[in-house]
Amino acid sequence: MGHTRKLRSSPSKLGVRRHSAAIFFENAKKRKVMDELLLNSSLRRVDSASGIVHPPRQHANPPGETPFIVLPVESRFSPMFERSRFALDIGGTLLKLVYSSVCQPGSKPQHVLNNGNKQKKLSEDPEVHVNFLKFGSIETCIEFIKKNWKDRVETDVLHCTGGGSYKHAELLQKALGVKVRRTDEMNSLIYGCDFLLRNNEDESFTYHHEAKGLEKFQYRPINADSIYPFLLVNIGTGISILKVDSPTEFQRVGGSSMGGGTFIGLGNLLTSATDFDALLKMADRGDHRKVDTLVSDIYGGSYGNLNLPGDLIAGSFGKCNKYDNRPSSTPPSPEDIAKSLLLMLSNNIGQMAMLYGHRYGMKRVYFGGFFIRKHPITMRTLSYAINFWSKGETEALFMKHEGYLGAMGAFLDENGDHA
Amino acid sequence: MGHTRKLRSSPSKLGVRRHSAAIFFENAKKRKVMDELLLNSSLRRVDSASGIVHPPRQHANPPGETPFIVLPVESRFSPMFERSRFALDIGGTLLKLVYSSVCQPGSKPQHVLNNGNKQKKLSEDPEVHVNFLKFGSIETCIEFIKKNWKDRVETDVLHCTGGGSYKHAELLQKALGVKVRRTDEMNSLIYGCDFLLRNNEDESFTYHHEAKGLEKFQYRPINADSIYPFLLVNIGTGISILKVDSPTEFQRVGGSSMGGGTFIGLGNLLTSATDFDALLKMADRGDHRKVDTLVSDIYGGSYGNLNLPGDLIAGSFGKCNKYDNRPSSTPPSPEDIAKSLLLMLSNNIGQMAMLYGHRYGMKRVYFGGFFIRKHPITMRTLSYAINFWSKGETEALFMKHEGYLGAMGAFLDENGDHA
Repeated sequence: MGHTRKLRSSPSKLGVRRHSAAIFFENAKKRKVMDELLLNSSLRRVDSASGIVHPPRQHANPPGETPFIVLPVESRFSPMFERSRFALDIGGTLLKLVYSSVCQPGSKPQHVLNNGNKQKKLSEDPEVHVNFLKFGSIETCIEFIKKNWKDRVETDVLHCTGGGSYKHAELLQKALGVKVRRTDEMNSLIYGCDFLLRNNEDESFTYHHEAKGLEKFQYRPINADSIYPFLLVNIGTGISILKVDSPTEFQRVGGSSMGGGTFIGLGNLLTSATDFDALLKMADRGDHRKVDTLVSDIYGGSYGNLNLPGDLIAGSFGKCNKYDNRPSSTPPSPEDIAKSLLLMLSNNIGQMAMLYGHRYGMKRVYFGGFFIRKHPITMRTLSYAINFWSKGETEALFMKHEGYLGAMGAFLDENGDHA
Repeated sequence: MGHTRKLRSSPSKLGVRRHSAAIFFENAKKRKVMDELLLNSSLRRVDSASGIVHPPRQHANPPGETPFIVLPVESRFSPMFERSRFALDIGGTLLKLVYSSVCQPGSKPQHVLNNGNKQKKLSEDPEVHVNFLKFGSIETCIEFIKKNWKDRVETDVLHCTGGGSYKHAELLQKALGVKVRRTDEMNSLIYGCDFLLRNNEDESFTYHHEAKGLEKFQYRPINADSIYPFLLVNIGTGISILKVDSPTEFQRVGGSSMGGGTFIGLGNLLTSATDFDALLKMADRGDHRKVDTLVSDIYGGSYGNLNLPGDLIAGSFGKCNKYDNRPSSTPPSPEDIAKSLLLMLSNNIGQMAMLYGHRYGMKRVYFGGFFIRKHPITMRTLSYAINFWSKGETEALFMKHEGYLGAMGAFLDENGDHA
């Protein structure tokens, strides 16, 4: 493996001060429960470079509830024992917050450690945790920061990235009474992605729909020197496709307007779902065959000459054609529509990812952004599309902190070097 | 040019019989009016191989009303002076009919000739015309054929292609009392496309949105020996992308479920338009900026670091997000939604076409299928997407008979050699 366990090492060895926990797990209850399967580390792991399969690890503790990571012991992180750091990625649809908190020695570790390293039941040294939270509006986000960033003073800096960091800079400055420092969006994204892949052994994983239970997921730890190059498909409101050759060398090679914003927008127009996750749950219960025209609907079976299976979607929403006095079949339910929408978008993103991956000879495609959310249909569709079209040459990799790559990057940009 | 004017030459030179016009323009009124701009030939034409620009031709007659072509004088077409030939392409959304009729000497040429050759006002020799019609349902199509294919006997053959030719073969056979002969769908498509490009000088054209009036359109005649290779993007219910090296060598290299069926289906769910063309007209009047999230909505302007202009669509339907108690702006009208939908699909098709075009080093991409319909927004979006992403390396070409390539191919397959 060669992967060093940097996370959770004791900060005491660096001689840093061990007090001043600015935020002390006050907000644990507010955090949403993350997918249990991915919070615990009892999954097989496959080394990305060697392909060696490692058995699941045995852990004494049950899986925890919230997504956070413990920062590795590096001098650059020492100031966070003194003062909190907050960073915000303001996108077209969501605001993503990343902030530090200090876990004091002897305190009960209520939270699982995402790096899978859970040997000790109680922390023996103080450590800096990085917490992840998302918001739907700038107002609720400001409210949260006001209430929880208690030690802030006017010389403090709120690290910001994302398109909205331009638009909302003044508002944030006034409301919070701190400085706002911007980090370039693409720089943040790559810098955050690099940090997580490099430091969090359980960050990336593959999805295997045909397997059962925990076997569906496989962690894909990767050596620091094998990370580059890769393709990063960031699914925000739309999608951005980046060819990444190093943390500082990358290029936006393509993009599409069909991303998470399209799923939410069309979902809003077509169903009564009240939020993104409700829309995803609707999709779970739906049957897209009532909405989509399948190959078998046109050909009466598969199209043998072209190797197109009968259950392949020939036309998304093709069965909703009521023009020309077509005999109407059973009208589709909102659930059916949500499923069709999710498949249409996921298939399209997967195909784009494959085409750009092939164009630049990339073996690995990582997905970032707040669209996938560990949703089986999405992961299955993306993995299938990439496997199908690339004939197995390219691999689809998902990330635990998919939505926080940009915010993580801004968090790490202490002095605004990546603006 | 080297383009020979095969069409409209006199069949009398072949010594074929000049009577038995099975159908004699009875249905002229039923045919829909085609875009005047494209029916008349007073457009500039640019030779595809040499790039030489030719001035518009001068014609004595006003433009006609219906799309048809006159078959060239070839012995294989002589039997059509005796007996009508009918061919049908049954797709997932539409049925496309191509059938012959005989124009007797001295009869008034009510119809414009799509090859732009209109030197004579009255026909001096009988000629075989090929007529093009589309239907929304198998029932109305059968009704039309019954009424208009008057000389049919049970040994006659209805040439069929498209997915529905499997499903509906028995129904057609029983209803019409003729034999049904199938031609493979992809073979038909390529064969029809080849015939039209080779024989109809005014078949393909480019679209130039920034130009004015007729200058927006440029015919792109091409020498028979310069036609191959090309990429054919056939937009039906979904899309099929074919790399075509000769009339008999081609490969379906990709496809997508997002085609005409998606436009109709989502249009049906989201607007009150009563048919495809009404939906297109709605789109004409709409403002997608009320529906889509633009780059400027996120960044407050352009995103300079990435060369993304402010008016670029960052997320299709992004402004329809009503979750998380977002402050609601003016709700979009059905027209705005139709426009956003059309742009989303056209952009996506254009990008796919560019990616596959680049992958296989294709200079020319022809668009087939019944989606474009000479619609300016669609042609502009497709042309722009291909130009933008290929940096001018690939050219988007449209076809007058875009929707009839498959039916034309089946029509030409007299003995079922391409089944």
